[in-house]
Amino acid sequence: MPEFRQNIVTKEWVIISTERAKRPDQFAEHRLPRKATPEFSQDCPFCPGNEHQTPPPSLQLGDGEGWSVRVVPNKYAALRPDHSTKRERAGRFLKADGYGIAEVIIETPLHNLSIATMSEPQVRLVLEAYRHRKNEVAKMRDINFITLFRNHGERAGTSLEHPHSQLIATPIIPPHVRDQIHQAMSSYDSYGTCVFCEMIEEELSQNVRIVMDSRYFVAFAPFASRSPFELRIYPKTHRSFFGNATDDELDDLAHILKTLLLKIHTGLDNPDYNYLIRSAPVGDYAAKYYHWYMVIVPRLTTPAGFEMGSGIYINVSTPEQCAEFLRSVNVA
Amino acid sequence: MPEFRQNIVTKEWVIISTERAKRPDQFAEHRLPRKATPEFSQDCPFCPGNEHQTPPPSLQLGDGEGWSVRVVPNKYAALRPDHSTKRERAGRFLKADGYGIAEVIIETPLHNLSIATMSEPQVRLVLEAYRHRKNEVAKMRDINFITLFRNHGERAGTSLEHPHSQLIATPIIPPHVRDQIHQAMSSYDSYGTCVFCEMIEEELSQNVRIVMDSRYFVAFAPFASRSPFELRIYPKTHRSFFGNATDDELDDLAHILKTLLLKIHTGLDNPDYNYLIRSAPVGDYAAKYYHWYMVIVPRLTTPAGFEMGSGIYINVSTPEQCAEFLRSVNVA
Repeated sequence: MPEFRQNIVTKEWVIISTERAKRPDQFAEHRLPRKATPEFSQDCPFCPGNEHQTPPPSLQLGDGEGWSVRVVPNKYAALRPDHSTKRERAGRFLKADGYGIAEVIIETPLHNLSIATMSEPQVRLVLEAYRHRKNEVAKMRDINFITLFRNHGERAGTSLEHPHSQLIATPIIPPHVRDQIHQAMSSYDSYGTCVFCEMIEEELSQNVRIVMDSRYFVAFAPFASRSPFELRIYPKTHRSFFGNATDDELDDLAHILKTLLLKIHTGLDNPDYNYLIRSAPVGDYAAKYYHWYMVIVPRLTTPAGFEMGSGIYINVSTPEQCAEFLRSVNVA
Repeated sequence: MPEFRQNIVTKEWVIISTERAKRPDQFAEHRLPRKATPEFSQDCPFCPGNEHQTPPPSLQLGDGEGWSVRVVPNKYAALRPDHSTKRERAGRFLKADGYGIAEVIIETPLHNLSIATMSEPQVRLVLEAYRHRKNEVAKMRDINFITLFRNHGERAGTSLEHPHSQLIATPIIPPHVRDQIHQAMSSYDSYGTCVFCEMIEEELSQNVRIVMDSRYFVAFAPFASRSPFELRIYPKTHRSFFGNATDDELDDLAHILKTLLLKIHTGLDNPDYNYLIRSAPVGDYAAKYYHWYMVIVPRLTTPAGFEMGSGIYINVSTPEQCAEFLRSVNVA
């Protein structure tokens, strides 16, 4: 029987469509084999030896010769660091110059790896770079909101093969983000607790959608998953700002992130995916109502007219089955 | 120079990315040729002769022998008409049975047409079916929200070739819809006017993004377009509920919808697209703060991690150039 389920934070509903449901392993089928990729590509601006093709780095990590992780301004940035933040009227409409920071985190010198297949210490370095840039960019002029994200494969919106993540920081805090914060504030004001902490406690207690549970983090396919194999990683104790993550927490996160993505890579035949870190806006570093987390969205289905019109996603899988499937994928 | 622009209704921002911008005609490039499709397909459940493969129709239009437009319950519906609407608790979470109405509007007996290529009288019949089903379904038990939409091509989420639209009706009014209504109400309460009417007046006055302007409707690429060639069709005088459209209005809408889609089909080499009708929830038939409209979204780019995280869409075209390009596409 199909079922509506509500996201306890955003109040958005999804339809878990049992009529159209597929078995978890069916999402691995019919994928075209990816072509074999070399470790090094002469034409790749992110490969070692081609460093002159990018702007000078804002961060470089690694010992001895060469670099391990390299962060550079995005050469084809959607936003520019030298503009004004002044809002202007265009008749009745509102606009502003495209001020913002756009950086690329080059995750490894090797052209053919991904978070799933690189070593855990390398993933730890990538997270180190995320935290460093998050905190540095937060200090920049008029920056209020920072998104860290990774696009893996063409269906996830990237055409550049070399493993990389991105950071985009804006002076604007969009309604998409504020609406979620308002809901979380309203819940805090009613119950005196963080709604994310409540959700984590509920997921741990129901214990049917958990994929991994470590010292500092828990990963699950949420109750109201919008799409097959959507996963979330939450710090188990209340933390509102990713930039404040401790070294111990990053060690643990590197393990959990790499393992989850390797389970997806192995169990679902390397699907395209996006991941992103949601965190409190700049300044709200100790917000009691907000909780940072990571979202992983494999691009296995296509939102269509109904999703555009209603915001209600039809999910052709159950998060319970997806979690069970991923738990069973052995990547040890 | 890149630019932030705000949607005057939802308050969401987009980035018009001039750095990454493409010329309008470049969006027509690199598309694989679609295979030639026959007028009739033996295996298609929507083709004439195969009527027994669908449930009995809820509406059939056409004179004399056969049918011209046929509306049937969706055999693979995400929602079912025989369930309860009672919300239930699952621990701290909220869920409900998947009650709802899901219908398929089979737009023509001919397997290989689309709204762009069928005759204008045929499009008029499709709109007649939309209006009829909208009004009938609105009377059904506990229905509060109805989405009418069309998915064209695989990138737009359909795999079924035979020309068809869909209707999905739910007891739930989702936050995605309510948030827009709240913004519109708030604007009405401040200014005493419909914010959509304000936007239409502003677009007509700036006159740089208009694609078509007819007796009852105006079509434009909106100021804060989220993606290339996003188009909206609005009634020029205040109308809140699509089901109340008059016969004259539907005549005019058939012309404008067919012409716009033919311009897209011709100028952009038949891209995949979604369209949908946004209209006031059931019961708010004469809402002074809300305005019904159609949205057309060609699927030419892929939203990625930044869009998921921020709700800010990066648009690699300018609506001014898209509108100019479509005006110049001759389909007479």
